[in-house]
Formats: sequence, structure tokens, C-alpha cells
Amino acid sequence: MTDTGREADGGASARQALDTLTLRLIDSIATAVRRSIERGELPHIELPVRSLANVTYDVDKGYFELGETLKTRTLTVNTVRSFAQTLRLMAASRQMVQGNDFATKREAYYISKNWGDCRFDAQTESDAIMDDIEALASLHGLAREQLRFYPESHGGSVAGPLTVIDTDPETGAVLEIDCANLGSGAWSVPRSVEQLGFRTDADFILAIETGGMFQRLNHHRYWKQANCILVEMGGVPTRATRRFIRRLSDDTDLPVYCFVDCDPYGFANIYRTLKVGSGNAAHINRFFCVPRAQYLGVTPQDIIDYRLEDATHPLTRTDIKRAGDAVKNDPFFASHPRWIAAIEQLLGMGVRAEQQALAKWGLNYVIDEYLPRKLENRESFLP
Amino acid sequence: MTDTGREADGGASARQALDTLTLRLIDSIATAVRRSIERGELPHIELPVRSLANVTYDVDKGYFELGETLKTRTLTVNTVRSFAQTLRLMAASRQMVQGNDFATKREAYYISKNWGDCRFDAQTESDAIMDDIEALASLHGLAREQLRFYPESHGGSVAGPLTVIDTDPETGAVLEIDCANLGSGAWSVPRSVEQLGFRTDADFILAIETGGMFQRLNHHRYWKQANCILVEMGGVPTRATRRFIRRLSDDTDLPVYCFVDCDPYGFANIYRTLKVGSGNAAHINRFFCVPRAQYLGVTPQDIIDYRLEDATHPLTRTDIKRAGDAVKNDPFFASHPRWIAAIEQLLGMGVRAEQQALAKWGLNYVIDEYLPRKLENRESFLP
Repeated sequence: MTDTGREADGGASARQALDTLTLRLIDSIATAVRRSIERGELPHIELPVRSLANVTYDVDKGYFELGETLKTRTLTVNTVRSFAQTLRLMAASRQMVQGNDFATKREAYYISKNWGDCRFDAQTESDAIMDDIEALASLHGLAREQLRFYPESHGGSVAGPLTVIDTDPETGAVLEIDCANLGSGAWSVPRSVEQLGFRTDADFILAIETGGMFQRLNHHRYWKQANCILVEMGGVPTRATRRFIRRLSDDTDLPVYCFVDCDPYGFANIYRTLKVGSGNAAHINRFFCVPRAQYLGVTPQDIIDYRLEDATHPLTRTDIKRAGDAVKNDPFFASHPRWIAAIEQLLGMGVRAEQQALAKWGLNYVIDEYLPRKLENRESFLP
Repeated sequence: MTDTGREADGGASARQALDTLTLRLIDSIATAVRRSIERGELPHIELPVRSLANVTYDVDKGYFELGETLKTRTLTVNTVRSFAQTLRLMAASRQMVQGNDFATKREAYYISKNWGDCRFDAQTESDAIMDDIEALASLHGLAREQLRFYPESHGGSVAGPLTVIDTDPETGAVLEIDCANLGSGAWSVPRSVEQLGFRTDADFILAIETGGMFQRLNHHRYWKQANCILVEMGGVPTRATRRFIRRLSDDTDLPVYCFVDCDPYGFANIYRTLKVGSGNAAHINRFFCVPRAQYLGVTPQDIIDYRLEDATHPLTRTDIKRAGDAVKNDPFFASHPRWIAAIEQLLGMGVRAEQQALAKWGLNYVIDEYLPRKLENRESFLP
């Protein structure tokens, strides 16, 4: 039985510590701005540069990371609006931390409609300022969720031998959710998972690309047979799903096996994003990557081993371009010769296969044959 | 406290009765085909015509309905493949009913890969045959879910004072899911909801367009304050969400209030689809429409009453075209003068407003002011 340290108070003390850190960061920036003004100087805020030029990749760390280059936003005639917007958005964040509230990116845009001249004209404006603040906070170990800006989309569904320990947002009472007792449904991961604690005796986490496959494995209680926790990603996993899997695997020390379609999108968009993050959001990868993720399948070799050739589809031009980019330009794949070999094997075959193609051998072949055989041979999983 | 008759056995007996009906239908068709062959005649199957020409709209019934025109699929050289496919897909359905299993549309396509010459070459082929069988079954009061073909997408999320009574798919044991005890998460509606029973003392069901708004109302336990059940639709509701709301409102006799964006897409795509169904899927509307749905808001008049003018966006060309179509060509809107007036008011204003625009007055204005004021005046809801 793996216990996380958080469940005694449903993660409340951990959240409190992060809240204190967040408030301290906001206060220190605001104080510096105020002191500059009191000294008769033009105030400024230092923000990390968010561009590929300021991104580093370290194989050991296993994710794209924001570099140390900073840009300075000084109060001038040209920047007065964005300077004020940065401060107001930080003030909104402070208020939400204090009131245990949150705002989606869309709501953050709308609350500005009451800010007079420094209102945002479009959400792209508020998103950009929010990304700046998020990048700054990330240097202090704080994710956007800690600033109380939540993603629009919630996470995927979860089923299996896992008790999630949460608090009632209103009363603070500790709640336990038994993900093995939700019938044919599942637990829907909330937008922010920072406060959650976990209790489980599962052996691994199975992250599944499609809702259809998740439903099949849940319906037949595969999680009981294999003693694992099922997580539905539903395509490229949302921030909430990625952060949930990261926190769950960190806290419980469980490996994460990914079960996705055998195509360049499955490798490079779904799996790679889950494992190491993405290049254009380097300031958040450290919170959202799942370094212990491994690729169970479907692999190009599986198409041969499980005789799926006649249940495949030809690679499209987009597939081929995406595979070429992965092999040539992606530092993650470049550092893993086994991945390069797998992608080149797929390009040689000229086809892709969906996880549901296993239904060719019967709807539950995946449960009775495929997954058990793959799990007997875990060292074959792609890195 | 509203109790549904189903909870004693978690809906198992209701499902059994439907299963018997499904098996009887499949057997009767197969028997007729076999008798024809034994008599030395060419076998045939009669299927409803699925086209707008065979759709009727009855204001009292409140949904688009399939007419009585039938087409005859006779076994000929040209139809031998689709004839065999129809029978094989029905046989697969029979097997799934007997084994308490199911297949997504995608899986149904893949299982054919083992059918030799009558395999499907593309999913469009299997979908068309499945639609035929579904239309046939609908004449006997059976939805596709009873044939064990499940949608790819699951339903939205649910939170509030509702106990869902379900059965463990493997053991048949009765399970109760308390949707008021899921912390910051929610219960994710499964793909098939036929077996569910419900227990609640809520006053109404609130169907919400966006995940962001659902999260806000759930986080602040609005469902406790208003004594209602929150359902997240996430845009145009999936089949599973629509069927869930329909069954929940039927079984508990609760009204359904819809809270969506004030734009033609919200009216004509989200709300109208939930309430009366869609024209091109007339054979399923009777199972999926929610006739007791009412439109709480956001209404065009709300933009004025709640001074949201500066938090609106101009109508796009697509918006204007969609609104024009609704006014001119849609029998649902045509039968409701109040809807015509509302849409024309919106066209006159030339803007649209999202539900999150209410955040202009503070993140929780929607909870403290907007929803209570709207609910005090329920006769103002659009039909």
C-alpha cells in the first residue's frame, strides 16, 4: 500500500505552503515597483524570455527547460498599458489565492472589462501577459495553477484501485473518492490537482489514448485483473491530465505505461508531450512532464507480431512529415536510438495502426492477449 | 425525495427486458431471411428510409421523427456484400447482448477485418449499415445503445445532490455513486446510461455549456445553494450526455434549465439539439431529445439587463447565417414566436455574449446575482 504524505489533511498543508510562496512572490514584485516609484525612478519588472532561443534540453532532466535570459518591462509611454495589465493580473491572482478562488484564461480576460483603460481588447493580449507571469512564477517553482489561473479543459477519466483524497472546496472537509467504485462511469480529473492526495496498492498506471479503449478496459474491470490505474487521455492530454499523472506517479512511485495509436501523432504529439513536454511551453514543462512514462504500444513491431497488417491505414503526407520532423529535429527522439529505429520502421512499412485495430482478433483480444503479453516483456517498452 | 423504480436492482431488470426485445428482433429478421432461402426465394430485409424526406415534426411530440417509408434490401449480385454485412453486424450485436459486451463504431469497423470478402473497406461503410440497423431497431423502440453499439465519446461531468445507482459490469453487484461527494472532481457519464437508476431530492437540473462555468459552480458548491444537479455539456452535448439528461429528467420528473452562450451556435446547435434533436439523425431523436428543457440564458435581453455590452463580440458572418437559417428554416424555432423575437433581437444588436462574460462584474457574480435573479423569474425562460 503506497501512501502519500498528504492524505492526513487532504493536501491542505501542502497547498498552504505553495499559497504562501505565491503571495510572497507577488508581494515582493509589487513592493519593488512601489519602492522605485517612491524613489522617483521608473519601475520595471524582469520576466523570462519565452522563446525557443531561451530553451535548453538536458537528457538527464528529461524535459525542455526555460533558460536564464530575462527581458525587462520598464514603465514607459509605450508599455504603460501592458505594465498596468501585468500588475492588475497579479493583483487578481493574489485575490484569488486569498479567497481560494480561481479563473479560467477566458474569465481572466473578462474580468479586465472593468479595468477601464487597461482592459484587454482580446484574449490573446491577456494570454500573453499571463504567460509572462507564469514564466516568472515558474522560476520560483510555481505553476500557473498556483497563481489560480486554471485551464479551460478538465482532465481525463480515471478508474481503478485508487483512492483520491480531496477537500470540499467550501467546508475544507476531507473527502475520499474510491475510483474502484464508480460503476460504468469514472472519476473526472478536476482542472487543478495540486491539493490531491493518493492511496493505492496498484502496480502501475496505464495511460490510454482513446476514450473507446478506456471504456472497454473499465467495463471489463481490466484494472482489477492487472492491478493498475486506468487514465483516459482523450488524444493529446490536457494540462490537467498531464499534471495529474505526474503527481500521481511522483507521489506513489508508480511507473506509467502509455497505450496509444501506432502513428507519428501518437509518438510525437501524445506520448512525447506527456513525457517531456513541448518546445513552445518550456516554462511549464518541469511541472507537467512525466519522466517515468514508458511506451507500451502500439509499436510498429506490434503490427507484425500481432498480424495487424490488414487493419492498418496508409500513412498520410502529414504523418510522413511529422515522422521526419521527429527523427530530424526533435531532441527527445534524437537522444533515443530505439525511437529513431521504430519511427524508421514505421516509415518503411508505410502504414499506421490504431489501438482499436486489435479488435480484428475479437473485441477483448486486447485484454486477454495483447496487454498481458506486452506486460510480460516490459523491457521491450520504448523509452 | 424522488426515487426511480429501478434502483432496487440497479436497473438490471429493465435492461434485461430490453435485451430480450433486442434478441427477439434480431432473431425474427434472421429467421425470415432463412425461411426465404429455404423456400427458394431471394431473401430481403426492410429498412426505414433515412432522409429528410422521411422525417416529420410534431409540435406536441417536440422532436423530429422518422416517417414510415421503408426501403427493401433484397439479396442480389449487387447487394450481396451489404446484405451479408447487415446480417453479420446484427449477429455481432446479438453476441454482444448475450455476452454483456459492446463495441464502439470504430471497433465495429475493425471486427469486420476478420470477415473475409464482406469486410468493410472504410468506416463510412460500417457506419451506414449500422445506421440502417439502428433505424430499423428504433421502429421497435430500441436505441443503438441497446444493440450494444456505443458512441466514441463519453458524456459530460455531473456534480450535485444525486445518487446514481449502477451495477458492477463484471459482478453485477449494485453500486451507488454519490455525486455530492467527489471533491473538486465530478462523475463522468459513461457511454451507455440505460442501466442507471437515480435518487435525488434536487429541484432542477442545470445543463451548462462550458467546462469552465461548470467548474466554477461546482467549486463554489452552487448545487448546494440552489439544490440542483449540475451537468457539464462541453459544447454540443454528446449522445451520452443527451441520453443521460433525458433519462435523469424523465425518471426524476425534474425540469432542465440550460445555461449557454448567447449566440446562434448556443441557440441552434447546443440548445436545440438537446431539446428536440437534429434533422439528420431523426431515427434517434425520440431517445435523445429532452422535451422538458428550457432556456435559462444567456438571452439577448440579458446583455442589456446585465450591462454586458462591452463584454460582447461582434456577430461573425457564420453567426448571422446560422441565425438566419434558424429563423427561416428550422421548424423548432418557427413554432416558437418568442425564439424568433429573441434571435431577431440579437441580430439587431449585432453582438454575441459568452456565459463567462458575466465575470466582468466579478468572478462569482454569476452565483451571487445572475442565477438567483434568473431563477426567481422562471416563466421568462425561453421555450
